[in-house]
Amino acid sequence: MNDNVKNIINTIKLLGVDMISNAKSGHPGIVLGAAPIMYTLFANHLNINPQNPNWFNRDRFILSAGHGSALLYATLYAAGYDIDLEDIAHFRSINSKTPGHPEYGITPGVDVTTGPLGQGLATAVGIAMGERYLANLVSKEIKNQKLIDYYTYVLCGDGDLMEGISYEAASIAGLYGLGKLIVLYDSNDVTLDGKKSKSVKEDLLKRFDACNWHVEYVKDGDDVLAINKAITRAKRVTNKPSIIEIKTIIGKGSFNQGTNIVHGSPLSKDDLDNLRRMMKIDTKRLEVIEEDIDNFRKIINDRVSKKYKLWYEYYSEVKKTELSEIQRLITFFDNGDISLNFRSDNFKIADNYVEELRESNSKIMNIIASRTPFILGGSADLGSSCKTNLVKEDDFSRNNYGGRNIYYGVREHAMAAITNGLSLLNLRAYCSTFLSFSNYQLPSIRLAALMKVPAIYIFTHDSIAVGEDGPTHQPIEQLLMLRSIPNLVVYRPADINEVIGSWENILNNNDPVALVISKNELPIIKGSDATKVKFGGYVIGEEKPCDGVIIATGSEVNLAAKVIDDLKVRGKNVRLVSMVSIELFKKQNLEYQKSVIPDNVKVVVIEAGSHYSWGDFTTEDKMICLDRFGLSGHKDQVLDYFGFTEAKILEKCLKIF
Amino acid sequence: MNDNVKNIINTIKLLGVDMISNAKSGHPGIVLGAAPIMYTLFANHLNINPQNPNWFNRDRFILSAGHGSALLYATLYAAGYDIDLEDIAHFRSINSKTPGHPEYGITPGVDVTTGPLGQGLATAVGIAMGERYLANLVSKEIKNQKLIDYYTYVLCGDGDLMEGISYEAASIAGLYGLGKLIVLYDSNDVTLDGKKSKSVKEDLLKRFDACNWHVEYVKDGDDVLAINKAITRAKRVTNKPSIIEIKTIIGKGSFNQGTNIVHGSPLSKDDLDNLRRMMKIDTKRLEVIEEDIDNFRKIINDRVSKKYKLWYEYYSEVKKTELSEIQRLITFFDNGDISLNFRSDNFKIADNYVEELRESNSKIMNIIASRTPFILGGSADLGSSCKTNLVKEDDFSRNNYGGRNIYYGVREHAMAAITNGLSLLNLRAYCSTFLSFSNYQLPSIRLAALMKVPAIYIFTHDSIAVGEDGPTHQPIEQLLMLRSIPNLVVYRPADINEVIGSWENILNNNDPVALVISKNELPIIKGSDATKVKFGGYVIGEEKPCDGVIIATGSEVNLAAKVIDDLKVRGKNVRLVSMVSIELFKKQNLEYQKSVIPDNVKVVVIEAGSHYSWGDFTTEDKMICLDRFGLSGHKDQVLDYFGFTEAKILEKCLKIF
Repeated sequence: MNDNVKNIINTIKLLGVDMISNAKSGHPGIVLGAAPIMYTLFANHLNINPQNPNWFNRDRFILSAGHGSALLYATLYAAGYDIDLEDIAHFRSINSKTPGHPEYGITPGVDVTTGPLGQGLATAVGIAMGERYLANLVSKEIKNQKLIDYYTYVLCGDGDLMEGISYEAASIAGLYGLGKLIVLYDSNDVTLDGKKSKSVKEDLLKRFDACNWHVEYVKDGDDVLAINKAITRAKRVTNKPSIIEIKTIIGKGSFNQGTNIVHGSPLSKDDLDNLRRMMKIDTKRLEVIEEDIDNFRKIINDRVSKKYKLWYEYYSEVKKTELSEIQRLITFFDNGDISLNFRSDNFKIADNYVEELRESNSKIMNIIASRTPFILGGSADLGSSCKTNLVKEDDFSRNNYGGRNIYYGVREHAMAAITNGLSLLNLRAYCSTFLSFSNYQLPSIRLAALMKVPAIYIFTHDSIAVGEDGPTHQPIEQLLMLRSIPNLVVYRPADINEVIGSWENILNNNDPVALVISKNELPIIKGSDATKVKFGGYVIGEEKPCDGVIIATGSEVNLAAKVIDDLKVRGKNVRLVSMVSIELFKKQNLEYQKSVIPDNVKVVVIEAGSHYSWGDFTTEDKMICLDRFGLSGHKDQVLDYFGFTEAKILEKCLKIF
Repeated sequence: MNDNVKNIINTIKLLGVDMISNAKSGHPGIVLGAAPIMYTLFANHLNINPQNPNWFNRDRFILSAGHGSALLYATLYAAGYDIDLEDIAHFRSINSKTPGHPEYGITPGVDVTTGPLGQGLATAVGIAMGERYLANLVSKEIKNQKLIDYYTYVLCGDGDLMEGISYEAASIAGLYGLGKLIVLYDSNDVTLDGKKSKSVKEDLLKRFDACNWHVEYVKDGDDVLAINKAITRAKRVTNKPSIIEIKTIIGKGSFNQGTNIVHGSPLSKDDLDNLRRMMKIDTKRLEVIEEDIDNFRKIINDRVSKKYKLWYEYYSEVKKTELSEIQRLITFFDNGDISLNFRSDNFKIADNYVEELRESNSKIMNIIASRTPFILGGSADLGSSCKTNLVKEDDFSRNNYGGRNIYYGVREHAMAAITNGLSLLNLRAYCSTFLSFSNYQLPSIRLAALMKVPAIYIFTHDSIAVGEDGPTHQPIEQLLMLRSIPNLVVYRPADINEVIGSWENILNNNDPVALVISKNELPIIKGSDATKVKFGGYVIGEEKPCDGVIIATGSEVNLAAKVIDDLKVRGKNVRLVSMVSIELFKKQNLEYQKSVIPDNVKVVVIEAGSHYSWGDFTTEDKMICLDRFGLSGHKDQVLDYFGFTEAKILEKCLKIF
């Protein structure tokens, strides 16, 4: 290793451990162990322009071991991103550019929010799949691949690779032969609780080999030449993803190197002083030698600037093409616009239309997808049951990256994270499974919500009306769980009109969403209105005078409509409100909210799920909800058993109104 | 295959597909594909007594592919369990003994509730670990291993093995060298959505080999001799778990054999007729030939009855021993009692006691664990942070199955399922991670709740007060999510007294529980009372007259206490209620509830989490809650930013009261 290189690495190391000690919080172990890996990647491989962190064709770097944020920020600063020493000094301070774990949208150069282990790697698989899809799309429409050909690099640790989601994602990456995905595995034999051997007894590279990965091993994590060669070899393997196990020493050079003590506790003053002594560097805390920084930036610039310039020259050329397909691509790359104008008022649905709602949703999805190439998605082996396949589109496969139906297998968790990865590219990616199995995806859905990416999670089989499959397949608390995730917008449409309205709203906004669809046959609700879905809740069938309100969602709206008719016969004028989305309704002004649900009238809620969702609207005694597990049986038996029939609800309502 | 065997297998097959067609719902594919595997296992290996399905030392059988319930019920009926043809005819009917997926506690012979894929296999790992632990305990105290030496068998499909949780569980099983765990893998190359090759490209046995498993391959799923030999070989490998891949044809013999069509749709009348023709059996639907049933029962009885008798003879001998350790074991095996009398009123905590609550919890846990050998547990690599290690106990390892500290690695999901498996043996198993990562565990926690096993989920780092680690590590919606799971009891104690009370209550009941503990230093709340935790919520510091109530939980109780003092200075007499457990409070009679929270007083809630939890107690404008993601920063900065300081809450309260 020449002195320049050593100095740059030492600069990154010191800056990283300094900022942790300064913040009195953070993880120095990975900083000292993995800095040479970061140096090698950024100096010799990563195609980036720190002045333009949003360059669409940049190589992506995902720090799956998100607790290594100090290492990342030190590297990004040194590489020339818009992060200064003031930001570094405010590491882990509130509202700084350098939060405790990397957060997408906060720090230039951070491509994915990470921290919960395994998520970064799985999201990276989505980013790598998106590269293949977009490269294919570009080549189809411009007969040229140059526009999109980025690599996706991941730095991960033992923790990431123990998580089930990372296995699922690795299996999918192997299935699709993602040659441009390269995982750098910081292998230090230590976890937070002690020696790795206490919790792992695996031949990890053999496991990845079994999943159709190319594997590399570097025995010395300080050997930047060996790391460099391994990355170069990995890049040459184009039909398989690569993992490079790099043996490092956690906290190398610190008093507690090689132990779990150095994983997550700041170094002492003595330790920092000693490090500097060993490195023969006499800077102050959080101080750098400009020359080292300049050298690093020059190395990156010398390697990348010409590529970057050429890409933009070529892109400018392409921009001149007037073909609409190409203009559509440009619009997408420039601002993430998918060139879709989906208007619900273009649809006229006959009043007597009756169909399984999942089938209606399928039709709408297929119409939408036929109008833009930027929608793709798949299912966790329930596509034929959720009915979310794009019937005129090919399957995404290692032989056809142009396919838009992704077979995720029974891997709900990685599917969710991959959907996030695709969404980070501005693709409108969707995925589907049964609502009950949303539980498998929550850690990734939470990250979609935190990153505010426009991921579309579709769930069918949305209540005890699932019937025979029984309580393991019957959601109770799942709607509530999704609603409780900040930033996520949950839709539960009542009929095909509301499905159309939900899609219009989903596509006109960029929120992460959950679209919850009944599997059962549902008629058109008289008065349902696609254009009103955007208000979240709206009045179906105005009643004046208004003796009360029934709020319902999804398949329960139909039930509520019948009960309201029965009540009318008995002289009670009760208003029906379809609450497609609580989140959207609560965003409306108070005047609108009160026009839908007036003060001083009794409000009943009907939803076959947890009553916890409804405290903002009424009191528990007026909630016809379900807070216990379901039962296996024919759906009519089950609904009757739990009181979700017209007669039983009417009886309750008569007591209330 | 001799005719007797063939006839028994055909009987199981026909009964399985008949009951599905009769119910018009179910999964015939696995019935026809895997019946020979079930036959071989039950006839030749499984040590069971159908007349005593609760025999503690029975071999366990877990159908991880829970959609194969018809195959299981047909086999259990044929084997002689207390299931009759009437039950079979009511397959998937409400409140029958034969629900859509196997449910623990409903059907004799069903050891685990399964259906959500991967869960069965992971739970089985817990059951196999429990066998090792209990065998070790027995041998230590009786110098003899005969009492506990059961095998744990699993039948799983491709779907199970795609799930991340099954990888996590397999890795743990390999780590601990669970030689008595044997997985039978029904390998049929078809999934619900089509050919397996669309979603899997793995050398599966190589992957398991890499995880320290013994692997076997049987090329013909009809070859009962080969299956038998493979199981026999697997049993001989005592230091590794075994997986036997058995190639089968899904729906074999039906018109759509070998395709996904037969996976989940009942067979037609023609198909059933044709099957009978091919088998040369002319029974009616749901009819069996008694001779075949008798033969099967005789085979099982001839093999097992002597072993069973000997075991009980030996057990009776042991029962006569008067040693207290042995009597304790007997009590445990007889009725699951862990012989612990933990009384909170034995503890006297000084009023000025201040300590991190996780540290207090650690001390209490260690005291409890020292008094009974039936408590064990571990952490997902956060034991040193959650502080849940049993400091005087050994580590559970393949060299020491007597250890009571389990190293789960960063595998939260499998940890949860394994905790369920241990709990199914009546062990009081606990596991710990950060509250934010409870999301990784929800599918398994849901099954614990559905099965009502006494699993103890411990979560620390329970709010934005986590501080620097930022929003990925700061729970917001997690408390609510846990509370919304039916049957699960959530505790969030405010101080060491309430920690003691929570443990007393947890150990005196057999509910699945989540125990949520602050990582931060918390003083004793004046008036807190361990003995009142059992009421869920109780009055701390009676105020008469009562101008209002503040409900708070966990670390927010201390904040509320300060605010109440401030309010008193200003002439407002506000009562403090600590709501340790909403679930327990709502179980109290209305009189008690109203004595704690009187009607007609204003109620404020303080909890740094989703407001959705509190609709039963007050209105949104009086909830001091948090419905957005947190921020990275020092905890005091973060709490202040979100308004969780004495001054800011006082200001709000002054406007309300």
